[in-house]
Amino acid sequence: MAAYLPSAEPRRYLYDLVADYPSRGGRAMRPSLCIATARAFGGTLERALLTAVSIELFHNALLIHDDIEDESELRRGKPTLNSLYGVPMAVNIGDALTVLSMRPLFDNLGTLGARLTMRIVLETERMARESAEGQALELGWRLDNKSDVSEPDYLEMVLKKTCWLASIHPMRTGALIATHGACDPDPFIRYGFFMGAAFQIQDDLLNLWGDEVRYGKELGGDLYEGKRTLMLIHLFGQASPAERERLTRLLAVPRADKPEADVRWLRGLMDSYGCMEYARSVANGLSGAATVELCRIFKGMPSSRDRDFLEALAEWVIERS
Amino acid sequence: MAAYLPSAEPRRYLYDLVADYPSRGGRAMRPSLCIATARAFGGTLERALLTAVSIELFHNALLIHDDIEDESELRRGKPTLNSLYGVPMAVNIGDALTVLSMRPLFDNLGTLGARLTMRIVLETERMARESAEGQALELGWRLDNKSDVSEPDYLEMVLKKTCWLASIHPMRTGALIATHGACDPDPFIRYGFFMGAAFQIQDDLLNLWGDEVRYGKELGGDLYEGKRTLMLIHLFGQASPAERERLTRLLAVPRADKPEADVRWLRGLMDSYGCMEYARSVANGLSGAATVELCRIFKGMPSSRDRDFLEALAEWVIERS
Repeated sequence: MAAYLPSAEPRRYLYDLVADYPSRGGRAMRPSLCIATARAFGGTLERALLTAVSIELFHNALLIHDDIEDESELRRGKPTLNSLYGVPMAVNIGDALTVLSMRPLFDNLGTLGARLTMRIVLETERMARESAEGQALELGWRLDNKSDVSEPDYLEMVLKKTCWLASIHPMRTGALIATHGACDPDPFIRYGFFMGAAFQIQDDLLNLWGDEVRYGKELGGDLYEGKRTLMLIHLFGQASPAERERLTRLLAVPRADKPEADVRWLRGLMDSYGCMEYARSVANGLSGAATVELCRIFKGMPSSRDRDFLEALAEWVIERS
Repeated sequence: MAAYLPSAEPRRYLYDLVADYPSRGGRAMRPSLCIATARAFGGTLERALLTAVSIELFHNALLIHDDIEDESELRRGKPTLNSLYGVPMAVNIGDALTVLSMRPLFDNLGTLGARLTMRIVLETERMARESAEGQALELGWRLDNKSDVSEPDYLEMVLKKTCWLASIHPMRTGALIATHGACDPDPFIRYGFFMGAAFQIQDDLLNLWGDEVRYGKELGGDLYEGKRTLMLIHLFGQASPAERERLTRLLAVPRADKPEADVRWLRGLMDSYGCMEYARSVANGLSGAATVELCRIFKGMPSSRDRDFLEALAEWVIERS
């Protein structure tokens, strides 16, 4: 990754800032998924490496724009780029990192050949489109202050916004690289959806319940932001008409103006209607479904350290704190 | 262009909005430059078309993010996307259009072959990097409220921010497409710099002097925004120490809080120091240099309608209102 982050001018206004999020660490789940899938399918680290680098750089670029879109204050335990340098600079830093994330894909030419290189580029284009569509749904619901988002609506949004980049795309490209483009990558949509949706629900639970230092973002930010989480959707389904009305009014208040007491009320209402328990049970079910899908995908294939890692990951996503 | 703008869900939150700026018209100067250069070098419209489409779509994507970064209110005579739907939606719409702008480049494969297609993609990557670097300089100067930006600093910023996308890249790719990658595209950096810098200075003059309806943006926005234009840099060089101090203080005030009377004072100071006349004379010189460069580039080549168009363009950029 470091090799693809230029050490050039303008440093202070661009390339130092472009390198900021990537240098803060992070779990590197997405590139790990790509490399592990490639190896579990008989490929090598070397063949998957540049694609994995591109995935993690693109993920960091999207984080920069996500933090603007969500008005987030913390990322990986430090202030977000938009908090540090303002929205205009942060938009441009995200744009620059998006451009930089493409170069490793073009450098695949030397190892993967023209056909497979282009296939991976088109896979990346699909993933980027799905991500933007999912983001559009989530932002649009917030903009319209929608109170009738259904669970299927929510799951479709998460499939697009989270799962394509978090799991589907890394595994599809890993498998395609290992098999020289010969495998059918579509089963990874099912697995990646189950696994990625469980991951997103757990992430939203941690936003309410987690340890701020380990989570790396400000707690309760989703409540201030009015994010349509599974907990909020469940709450709308359970609440009384009067509570629903108060909820809708509260969600219409801009993030910065939401009274803390009202947010505490919202949080208490979620507790009393068992929204966290409900979301946790859905995440558990999705994680189980992911494990079943993975067995199907790897049926008849040799066991390996990488396969074990992928199997463990489907459980980790709901157990992590 | 229309063929590359999806008619798909989510419409209301994404694809209708992605199509908004492109459907507002505009001069299509960049794709025209690409097609005219390709034809003047013996190529065809058909071979250059997809690259021209990609250039105009990418230009529109950058406009969306530029309007956020500059807090602009009007674009092509209508409210900007950030004014209409807020910054979060506009960031995502720009990201989606950036992704969509790449597809025509990949579709070049059928007509241009793998090698030239990849060359054009790498040219695009270079242009996108240059644009982000130029934008970083301009935003950074504003963030730091720099009062010592020199003319060479300014011209380097404009080379990157404006010229690569406005003129250098369209002409380089047009010539490469026509010659099957055999021409030396570097002379277009000189021509494109002269022509693009004249274009930018004229654009900044129109921001102060133009007809709002024909210009399509709010007049004087650059003054409120504190944009480091050639007029402002010249003013810093001419003003008295006391005026410079007042200027620096005024530029530090956020756009929304700048008193109209102070902006009128700034505008009057520019008038009294002849800043517009100075900028106009620099733009004239650059336009003349562009004409000379173009003669050099086309020396010994047959005259054509497309060559005439390119020659006329170098004058049009400073005459347009």
